[in-house]
Amino acid sequence: MSRIVQKYGGTSVGDVERIKKVADRIRLTINEGHQVVAVVSARAGVTNELIARAREITLQPSEREMDMLLSVGEQETIALTALALHELGVPAVSFTGAQAGIQTDTIHTKAKIQAINADAVEAQLRAGRAVIIAGFQGVNEHGHITTFGRGGSDLSAIAIASALKADRCEIYTDVDGVYTADPRVVTAAQKLEEISYDEMLELASSGSKVMQSRSVEFAHKHKVVFEVRSSFNFNRGTIVKEEVPQMEKVVVRGVAVDRDQAKVIVSNIMDKPGSAAKVFQAMADATIVVDMIVQNVGRNGIANLTFTVPLGDTLKAQKALEPVLDELGGGHVAVHENIAKLSVVGVGMKTHSGVAADLFRALADADVNIDMITTSEIKISVVVDQDKADDAARAVHTAFGLDAR
Amino acid sequence: MSRIVQKYGGTSVGDVERIKKVADRIRLTINEGHQVVAVVSARAGVTNELIARAREITLQPSEREMDMLLSVGEQETIALTALALHELGVPAVSFTGAQAGIQTDTIHTKAKIQAINADAVEAQLRAGRAVIIAGFQGVNEHGHITTFGRGGSDLSAIAIASALKADRCEIYTDVDGVYTADPRVVTAAQKLEEISYDEMLELASSGSKVMQSRSVEFAHKHKVVFEVRSSFNFNRGTIVKEEVPQMEKVVVRGVAVDRDQAKVIVSNIMDKPGSAAKVFQAMADATIVVDMIVQNVGRNGIANLTFTVPLGDTLKAQKALEPVLDELGGGHVAVHENIAKLSVVGVGMKTHSGVAADLFRALADADVNIDMITTSEIKISVVVDQDKADDAARAVHTAFGLDAR
Repeated sequence: MSRIVQKYGGTSVGDVERIKKVADRIRLTINEGHQVVAVVSARAGVTNELIARAREITLQPSEREMDMLLSVGEQETIALTALALHELGVPAVSFTGAQAGIQTDTIHTKAKIQAINADAVEAQLRAGRAVIIAGFQGVNEHGHITTFGRGGSDLSAIAIASALKADRCEIYTDVDGVYTADPRVVTAAQKLEEISYDEMLELASSGSKVMQSRSVEFAHKHKVVFEVRSSFNFNRGTIVKEEVPQMEKVVVRGVAVDRDQAKVIVSNIMDKPGSAAKVFQAMADATIVVDMIVQNVGRNGIANLTFTVPLGDTLKAQKALEPVLDELGGGHVAVHENIAKLSVVGVGMKTHSGVAADLFRALADADVNIDMITTSEIKISVVVDQDKADDAARAVHTAFGLDAR
Repeated sequence: MSRIVQKYGGTSVGDVERIKKVADRIRLTINEGHQVVAVVSARAGVTNELIARAREITLQPSEREMDMLLSVGEQETIALTALALHELGVPAVSFTGAQAGIQTDTIHTKAKIQAINADAVEAQLRAGRAVIIAGFQGVNEHGHITTFGRGGSDLSAIAIASALKADRCEIYTDVDGVYTADPRVVTAAQKLEEISYDEMLELASSGSKVMQSRSVEFAHKHKVVFEVRSSFNFNRGTIVKEEVPQMEKVVVRGVAVDRDQAKVIVSNIMDKPGSAAKVFQAMADATIVVDMIVQNVGRNGIANLTFTVPLGDTLKAQKALEPVLDELGGGHVAVHENIAKLSVVGVGMKTHSGVAADLFRALADADVNIDMITTSEIKISVVVDQDKADDAARAVHTAFGLDAR
């Protein structure tokens, strides 16, 4: 008998009819002879409704109380899912995060899981019941409810799979798996059968939003193999697992485009030690995450600093830079929002040379200008004109032999 | 510094605006120098919405899962109330029933409170915070969420007031207090300044639905004095407390009319030992609560048995009686639904004679026919035609000197 942890997201349990379908899917898995633990999210929309109600009261809500408030969304779903299972004749019991023994630190709204005491869940599984657990939530040492922030239910599922030493962890969502590129843009994109944690992480941080990076990192750290698949059909999904030598044969696993970045250019500053440090300290103080950085120094000792920030942070960045420029004795700030970051990702890059050259040639052939470049061990990212991003993605996808045959 | 427990029902916290008003009321109480614990219900309508969603899934829901489901209603309200207090600058923290240490037996959907461990609440009060507690819910020895059934939030408030040795317990509702009669029927009805537990209980069981009997019984047993008052104004309400000699000076405290009863007549049965027992055993087996009972025996050894049952149980009662009649060798069942039970209640009856005679005379003067009569130490109830019930209530209210001057 295998032990399987399944996670169903907000659209998968969006209404009573969908919840019934999820229950039927759990039933089918149990009928195949497996033990099932299902982690469920709040019904799609419920969390936003609750947030809207809180906003009517205050614009600066206590994070502890927001956790108390938002955790009800998942609690409703677990009860309804358990009822739907009973109606199908399947013994089942629901647990809140606290009841499931998910212990976290005390940081409300973005708590980290510290330990899972799975005794209660184990006992229910041994008694032959499916266990339905509220995702996104846990309890801290003071007995207060905590939540994990966006994508938190994935984290719950992976942590529970780890604690229960589950044989499989299935993340059900509204897409069929992880693709070589966004199929809405690149029609020749293919679903990947498997992908390494590192590749998945780089894709996630490059704009491919199947899962939050945090959950993938947690899975990697605890060596939890999981499958991303759709709750709307029975197709196999994509297995996310530790890198194996076999994987290096593929140079580029996927192409991602991130349109949520803006470019900040700080020009005409004196090229002296500490200038760049002052600029990025200002960004850090303003809690702005800087992604790509390029520095050019001209002959006259005047430097230009170009970097990317999240699109929503451009105003904040400009404001934070003003005092820095004063301090540096001049300079100019410009923001370009009409950009996109295109990334190619693959563990094969570690052992293959010439990937950058192939990428640049493909872009040149497609008449796409390259603005900034960064590379990591398994990723190359370039900034391009946002209007050219789709063409660029298709050209690169073809060039690296990723198109479906 | 006094310690005050306040309970706000579903209409008092019906929407965000009302929740803000409740928060302001709590703030005013704290500003008067008191410690406040507020027990709140689910927003009006939320519990019914949740039940409707469960019904879409199953008509025989697991009671454990219904408790898991319904408890989210109160959990939402406590968080929103705490946020509203913060917005007013009042330190506050919300607790679920479990977090507040409300320990119950294991009977889901109608759990009984067994103990309250108020340490966590005490600690918050000592730290200068208002504590907002989810009514209607607790936790059993297995860590499962339990609920108390209808009127459960009143019970929570009274039990918490007892555990915290509160100086005052205020039950906020949508009426101004307990009246000598229903003011919608008897315009001369007066709000009572105080009433004894026993009188309150008899009124509750006689159709005056300010509170469920259970909560009053709990308050009586644990000697918790409480005040029923409106959350929509600042009028004093009605104090419910232990009987004091002073109270016996008033013969009749109030008049109640219950229209939710039907009369069942079992006629032409043999008057032999055990006949009545068989009839009422059948009612008990069908979990039908029988209220008033009258038996007439004719000269020929033929008996008639008349009793009242809740209006919704008449079909069930008729069905349950069929096999009994077969066993008794004949008889006939008739149901009259167009009746009302009128009751006069007062601890003064214990020391005053002639109350029944006064009641009957008042009814006769009002041309109201009396069908059945029962008496207890502090109550006399009569069954009358439902069409005459309002006239009867007004006549009796006047006759016992209860009309407002």
